[in-house]
Amino acid sequence: MASPPVSYQGIPGSFSYLAAKQCFPEAREMISAKSFSELFRTVGNSTDGYGVVPIENSLAGSIHEVYDLLHSSDVTVCGEIYLRVAHCLLAIDNSAIEPEGRIGTLKKVYSHPKALEQCRRFFENNPGIEACIYSDTAGAAKFVKDSSTSELAAIAAEESAALYGLQILKKNLEDNPGNFTRFVIISKRPVNSDQADKGSLIFTLPHKPASLFKALEVFAERNLNVTKVESRPIHGSPFEYNFYIDFEFPRGDIQAADEAVTELRNRTRTIRVLGFYKSEQR
Amino acid sequence: MASPPVSYQGIPGSFSYLAAKQCFPEAREMISAKSFSELFRTVGNSTDGYGVVPIENSLAGSIHEVYDLLHSSDVTVCGEIYLRVAHCLLAIDNSAIEPEGRIGTLKKVYSHPKALEQCRRFFENNPGIEACIYSDTAGAAKFVKDSSTSELAAIAAEESAALYGLQILKKNLEDNPGNFTRFVIISKRPVNSDQADKGSLIFTLPHKPASLFKALEVFAERNLNVTKVESRPIHGSPFEYNFYIDFEFPRGDIQAADEAVTELRNRTRTIRVLGFYKSEQR
Repeated sequence: MASPPVSYQGIPGSFSYLAAKQCFPEAREMISAKSFSELFRTVGNSTDGYGVVPIENSLAGSIHEVYDLLHSSDVTVCGEIYLRVAHCLLAIDNSAIEPEGRIGTLKKVYSHPKALEQCRRFFENNPGIEACIYSDTAGAAKFVKDSSTSELAAIAAEESAALYGLQILKKNLEDNPGNFTRFVIISKRPVNSDQADKGSLIFTLPHKPASLFKALEVFAERNLNVTKVESRPIHGSPFEYNFYIDFEFPRGDIQAADEAVTELRNRTRTIRVLGFYKSEQR
Repeated sequence: MASPPVSYQGIPGSFSYLAAKQCFPEAREMISAKSFSELFRTVGNSTDGYGVVPIENSLAGSIHEVYDLLHSSDVTVCGEIYLRVAHCLLAIDNSAIEPEGRIGTLKKVYSHPKALEQCRRFFENNPGIEACIYSDTAGAAKFVKDSSTSELAAIAAEESAALYGLQILKKNLEDNPGNFTRFVIISKRPVNSDQADKGSLIFTLPHKPASLFKALEVFAERNLNVTKVESRPIHGSPFEYNFYIDFEFPRGDIQAADEAVTELRNRTRTIRVLGFYKSEQR
């Protein structure tokens, strides 16, 4: 793609930043957003900008805050990318001591709560180290650098070491190596893609028996593969659910996708098409 | 039910403890487990014991660690309960100062990472307070009590105030009041219930078009309502998914549930019946 401005959540070095860089290596401007809602506002107000947001993680599941923002905003999903999440332990550079040996001298390790959770075994094996919350992984790395204290460390992506001038004490700190996050690219205007082969939808169903079955029939009848389905209770409406659906269609055949959605409108109560885009393999 | 031993994760006052107490008010023994896997081991080795574990949260979604343990163990789900999650700010008792006024004097607030995340707005509004991770909410309350330091506080359930002799500085600290957790009751032996009206399954599907559709057809043909469906990528198998399904059947009609499962075996690759049990309304 060209060199549009690209928004991501967090600061340089965050996983969202790395995903955004991978999607748009030539971006003319990388815009840091403090929160997902700020990011959606920025993208919604931009005529040519993009945003890159995490939508699901292989361990933690769907990121409902982002789904809620996709649901209530009018931005379009125009791409996706899978990023492997590998956590490193980073500290002030002290080449006099062997890196792994320094772990025993640490007092506090800062990171995003999800990253700390994903490295539970490290803290179980090092009970003397306190796990401290920071708003994001890269911010924790910057905080450790600014502190100039060798008893502190951060859990962050390997790239944060170079970005903030820290030493890597240990790699692959995460309990589960099969940890990847799926990000989607969003924009205000739909992006015409003759490469599109995947669609994402959120819908609600009428209160009738077998209504989910009848909705999925639309895809089955057309030989379109459903790659994700998830029901999510709607707050305040005990027996109502939002359904998240991803489906595949022949590359570039937007008409097939459109026809499925048109028929789906007859079988759902509300429907929001998040976008048709080119799928990436994980 | 009778007065069996009941396992829960965490220490007295944790949300799991409160859920277990609500399910088994007459339990002759409440067994604290350090982790979910320890809890599953305890229940799996017990002839008459039960366990109470969280399986999904209205904000965070499914708790995949518990689903994985349900999948790989041979315990049975025999009940469910919904618990509203309300967080309180608890500190050492100091009746000389008005509770809300003390918030400005706090330095650190300890809690489980999920609870800290759910109270993000409180930390945004009080940037001088550091959010610190503790393994569980009730443990954080106990830690604050043991510290005897008035600059520390914990985020935990209201019940932890009485249990650990702390003062409630503020109630309903959570950003979203629609925060509830669904717990399931597990046991080694299936519990015969003529009140059962809900079933939970985990299955994988053959690599054929419309295989999910054909699986759901089993329920649609029998007028059985599917209340939850979720696809989850299987680690290491890029195009394979586990499907979590909950469905309802007429109260006590285990035969209808069994027939659906029997037919489902013909349409799935692997299937694990977690259990048939009495549903609870949230």
